[in-house]
Amino acid sequence: MTVSDKTTSDIFRNAIEALKDPLPQRVWSVIVSLFGDIAQGERDQISGVALTEVGRLMGIRSEAIRVALHRLRKDGWIESLRDGRSSMHKLTAAGRRASINATPKIYAREPVTTPGWYVICTDRDLHGDTGKTLSNAGISLSRNSFLVAENKLPDTANMLVFRASPEHVPDWARSQICPDELQQAAVTLETSLQKASSYITAPPGFDALQTTALRTLIVHRWRRIALRIPDAPVCFFPKTWRGEACQQLSSGLLDQLPAPNLPDLETAASGYRHRDLSV
Amino acid sequence: MTVSDKTTSDIFRNAIEALKDPLPQRVWSVIVSLFGDIAQGERDQISGVALTEVGRLMGIRSEAIRVALHRLRKDGWIESLRDGRSSMHKLTAAGRRASINATPKIYAREPVTTPGWYVICTDRDLHGDTGKTLSNAGISLSRNSFLVAENKLPDTANMLVFRASPEHVPDWARSQICPDELQQAAVTLETSLQKASSYITAPPGFDALQTTALRTLIVHRWRRIALRIPDAPVCFFPKTWRGEACQQLSSGLLDQLPAPNLPDLETAASGYRHRDLSV
Repeated sequence: MTVSDKTTSDIFRNAIEALKDPLPQRVWSVIVSLFGDIAQGERDQISGVALTEVGRLMGIRSEAIRVALHRLRKDGWIESLRDGRSSMHKLTAAGRRASINATPKIYAREPVTTPGWYVICTDRDLHGDTGKTLSNAGISLSRNSFLVAENKLPDTANMLVFRASPEHVPDWARSQICPDELQQAAVTLETSLQKASSYITAPPGFDALQTTALRTLIVHRWRRIALRIPDAPVCFFPKTWRGEACQQLSSGLLDQLPAPNLPDLETAASGYRHRDLSV
Repeated sequence: MTVSDKTTSDIFRNAIEALKDPLPQRVWSVIVSLFGDIAQGERDQISGVALTEVGRLMGIRSEAIRVALHRLRKDGWIESLRDGRSSMHKLTAAGRRASINATPKIYAREPVTTPGWYVICTDRDLHGDTGKTLSNAGISLSRNSFLVAENKLPDTANMLVFRASPEHVPDWARSQICPDELQQAAVTLETSLQKASSYITAPPGFDALQTTALRTLIVHRWRRIALRIPDAPVCFFPKTWRGEACQQLSSGLLDQLPAPNLPDLETAASGYRHRDLSV
């Protein structure tokens, strides 16, 4: 082990420590983040060995990876193929779609700025999925009125539509949009990302497994906040909201840690192949 | 009786016939229209004799006037004073206030055009009279969201406020704003007013009692529509809405029938004093 190796391994250990979720992790969800980050392509697949090694670097036991893959197969996220003594895993078509849908929000570089907003009211008797569609597209203001961004407008033929610009947003509306728990999660993540950034300064020379482990933790933790940020005008967020800081820090870290090629990941993992073939 | 008297009396009878409400009248409400129209001043009062005579010309029996005045006293609209063998009646302070509040809508010459509209949302838990205040100020879009005109905005410190311009108004919203029954009432009133206008062409030479009877019927019937027209952008009304036609016709008729002075009314009524002193 060279001095450089020692340094790289210290930096890695510190960065992993900084990025580990203070809350218990759902391993299946971490794996979804990993596939979404480096294996979203239709032909992309990752071996059980590589998944196990990346998991080990993140502090996840191989048994937990095995259980999570089982659940992901059952829920239609992942399909697995035997390949000799090992297995290859890939996103299903449905898994890919869900992953692709989430990508813009997770990897956006800038806060989304929307030029126009609409208040939409439906008839008092909401039929079918209209209410769900509308609250997913924007913010629910009441059981039958919604704030929706211009670029998310559904078919409004049967709806009452106002072009709307917010003039006054009271505290209760800010709390509804951005609950305390989400605000607190952003504050905590900002601290983690700042700490990790302070370790990963110069190009760190991580191997493909290390890079994947770090990227996965970053993407996973940011994803759990990013996907819960409602599509709302900027003035709806509290002044103390740290979502944008988290977005910038995670983008910066991912730039420092370019996604590895899958062959490089397998090569790095193959050194460990003797340890565990059973996933 | 001269030829002119005969003509005047024919015109009057035809006009009254045209203006009579096809639906049963609430006499107390007719009396409120009468006071609001010619005796809204703080010192204005009308004798029981004059009320009885005007009522008689409208086809209301003196007994019904007596019962209605009793109810109006009980409900705090009217106060009555004995004056020798007759009684004098006037609006109470509360009655005057209600009457003054309704005046702009009843006597407006032009459709109200409002430059700006706002969508206002309250917190999900509406306290006290906020909801009632807001639906009176504008249109209720849901249990906690309202469309309110610029000049009717309440204290919005604790409300979510959007400046809003309507872009699409579906049929169900038009029906909610302007229910079939209100639309039909406007169509019926337009016919009545047109018929009355066709009789009252040249200055008709009615006495103060006749003028009051005709004005009261016009104001009363229009009032029952005017006060139910919601404060809403023009595009919320159906194309077949006849409210504005009614407004123009009733304004035109009232211009032809200038409100009499109260002394003239009493003078005209005194000729009939021997008939009924008991109101």
